[in-house]
Amino acid sequence: MEHLRKYLVEFIGTFFLVFTVGLTAFAPVALPAHKVAIGFVLMVMVYAGGFVSGGHYNPAVSLAAAVRGALSWSQIAQYWIAQFLGGAAAAGLVMYFTASPEVEAGCPFGLMALIIGEFLFTYALCYVVLMTATSKATAGNSYYGLAIGSTVMVGAFVAGGVLCFGAFNPAVALGLWMLKSACLGSILITIATNLVAGALAALTYKLVVKED
Amino acid sequence: MEHLRKYLVEFIGTFFLVFTVGLTAFAPVALPAHKVAIGFVLMVMVYAGGFVSGGHYNPAVSLAAAVRGALSWSQIAQYWIAQFLGGAAAAGLVMYFTASPEVEAGCPFGLMALIIGEFLFTYALCYVVLMTATSKATAGNSYYGLAIGSTVMVGAFVAGGVLCFGAFNPAVALGLWMLKSACLGSILITIATNLVAGALAALTYKLVVKED
Amino acid sequence: MEHLRKYLVEFIGTFFLVFTVGLTAFAPVALPAHKVAIGFVLMVMVYAGGFVSGGHYNPAVSLAAAVRGALSWSQIAQYWIAQFLGGAAAAGLVMYFTASPEVEAGCPFGLMALIIGEFLFTYALCYVVLMTATSKATAGNSYYGLAIGSTVMVGAFVAGGVLCFGAFNPAVALGLWMLKSACLGSILITIATNLVAGALAALTYKLVVKED
Amino acid sequence: MEHLRKYLVEFIGTFFLVFTVGLTAFAPVALPAHKVAIGFVLMVMVYAGGFVSGGHYNPAVSLAAAVRGALSWSQIAQYWIAQFLGGAAAAGLVMYFTASPEVEAGCPFGLMALIIGEFLFTYALCYVVLMTATSKATAGNSYYGLAIGSTVMVGAFVAGGVLCFGAFNPAVALGLWMLKSACLGSILITIATNLVAGALAALTYKLVVKED
Repeated sequence: MEHLRKYLVEFIGTFFLVFTVGLTAFAPVALPAHKVAIGFVLMVMVYAGGFVSGGHYNPAVSLAAAVRGALSWSQIAQYWIAQFLGGAAAAGLVMYFTASPEVEAGCPFGLMALIIGEFLFTYALCYVVLMTATSKATAGNSYYGLAIGSTVMVGAFVAGGVLCFGAFNPAVALGLWMLKSACLGSILITIATNLVAGALAALTYKLVVKED
Repeated sequence: MEHLRKYLVEFIGTFFLVFTVGLTAFAPVALPAHKVAIGFVLMVMVYAGGFVSGGHYNPAVSLAAAVRGALSWSQIAQYWIAQFLGGAAAAGLVMYFTASPEVEAGCPFGLMALIIGEFLFTYALCYVVLMTATSKATAGNSYYGLAIGSTVMVGAFVAGGVLCFGAFNPAVALGLWMLKSACLGSILITIATNLVAGALAALTYKLVVKED
Repeated sequence: MEHLRKYLVEFIGTFFLVFTVGLTAFAPVALPAHKVAIGFVLMVMVYAGGFVSGGHYNPAVSLAAAVRGALSWSQIAQYWIAQFLGGAAAAGLVMYFTASPEVEAGCPFGLMALIIGEFLFTYALCYVVLMTATSKATAGNSYYGLAIGSTVMVGAFVAGGVLCFGAFNPAVALGLWMLKSACLGSILITIATNLVAGALAALTYKLVVKED
Repeated sequence: MEHLRKYLVEFIGTFFLVFTVGLTAFAPVALPAHKVAIGFVLMVMVYAGGFVSGGHYNPAVSLAAAVRGALSWSQIAQYWIAQFLGGAAAAGLVMYFTASPEVEAGCPFGLMALIIGEFLFTYALCYVVLMTATSKATAGNSYYGLAIGSTVMVGAFVAGGVLCFGAFNPAVALGLWMLKSACLGSILITIATNLVAGALAALTYKLVVKED
């Protein structure tokens, strides 16, 4: 039961994150405000659910937490399932409101740009999560959600749509694919890159923070 | 007397929230900055009055707080009255500055979109309020106002004007109706949806947070 | 010496606030970002200097603090002098960079709109300052600067340039007059309104907060 | 080893700061959102790495910290090296994505405007860092990163591109020169001004804060 609470919180948070991403992907005009919304809905859900589940809402973050030792390896599959289900439910609801595009989206980004853009900001995101929300030195702080959500907002502002999709999150990538906002090949590369970035951020954490 | 302090704080906070909404509804050009203003004036009033009244400024939030056990049922009617009076006073003052539109606003949103939009973000708002401002595990944090105000800002950015009015609050809905920004039928559906969402968020809270 | 530290901090903070206001008043294009800058520079200076001087940077806030009992009446004149000097120095520096307008600014706002706009948001500002930065119940919080700066940002977004100049601060009003952004009559009404609003906010504080 | 952790954290933070600046410098359209990104990426990295290295990411801030006594003089050279390396690596990566401009950038700002703009906001930045992140009176607060990042955002909004480049940071200035966004003479003046401002902010700190 204790664990079910966590998975429900992960489902809810990922649902609202991907629902927000999905609505902005179909907005008639793309606005910077939409990227603020994406970063801030993550912030809000991190603050709301962090004390129950850790507030990951992102399989790459859960992987980083597991590598760092802040999430039990025995729970990571359930976290991923809750996150992908939350993202898929949100994308499905967005599809209910919006006409499906006639043709599938192309792969608008160069391979290196896609990989570097998704890598760097997912790495930054997971590094920020581990440093602000899992280290003893910063325990009890009130800024972790602001820092985590803002990292995604910054990545969306400067890399999203320029170098890459700006997912920084495999559950978001799944949602973008369901909404035909990205071709399957790009999405798979995005997901793989996100996970590698999360693992490397966890190794960086171990390097720069003394054993607690 | 102790209770009167609370009602006055709820009146003041709801007044400034609806005054801000009303001024933006009549601004010559609609700007994302107006939605930032709406979210942030709520944040500011939550931080200012939270320690006196809980800083609801929203009948749906007061209902959620009562269902969760953070507000006595014997006070909810007075909270609602203070909130609706604050909202009505603000809408009246905005009407003093602005020419009343010739014709009443239509009902621009589809029924399902209206209900889903108002439901989801009011649910998120009440969930965030209960998780960040009423749970023992997060007591004493400094982020609850930022999280609460930002939830409204996010909803206003992605759903307000697209799926629904973006009220997420029966007192705001009343103000929009007084300002002829919405037809009566839509407003009544909005208010009912907001209250249902608040109650369901409180049940979710009970599900995911262990008894204190 | 102890007091001189406070006056220097008030001078520095008011200088940066009015310097920011002045640069935005002469920007070739008016942007919402400029109003964010004004609110956030106040936030920054409140966080930086609050522990030394209280971080008022605003004669109306100092008056509110004195009425509420958080500032000694014997220091208010020195606070006001430091604030007006900081604002005047900043306005003078902005004048160095910018061509003085040929003709003095008019009085673009109706008298009632000017008074109500300046009154309401100065009242909100002083209410937020007293509730978040001077009450025992919220001592030690980390949100007071965010709440205080955001109140000015919200007022600037929805009332500044629409109902009133958006000064909410006699030292800012003085700077606007030096920069010929406002006629003398409007400025004097603004300053008087700001001070009345500060005093009434302090009385509200005494009404809603139990004696500490 | 303890020190190597710090230098790595300084490298990472400065890398992401200058990478963000570099991407925005080559964005097809200049947006206020880009300046938000620059301020917020600094905020994020300050929150992430502050507890390891102090979170400077800026040679002028490290100088201010050394003058104030918050950084050992024996480490400042290594801090500067880590910061310049991080900035140079980021600028190099941005160059990989973007076509180098045909001609080197000119020196678009007047000498006095350049010096005053860079001086004032670097002074404000270092003052805010010392007051919020190194004084005993504010130890343990959760706002220092928000205040520090917002100072850069405000400076970028009102002075960046108007009076000066808006670097407020020698490592950023180096990156702008590598990206041919500024001529060498202006960059050298910027760097010297940043360092002088940092030293003077530290002297101000000593004046306004009682010996701990």
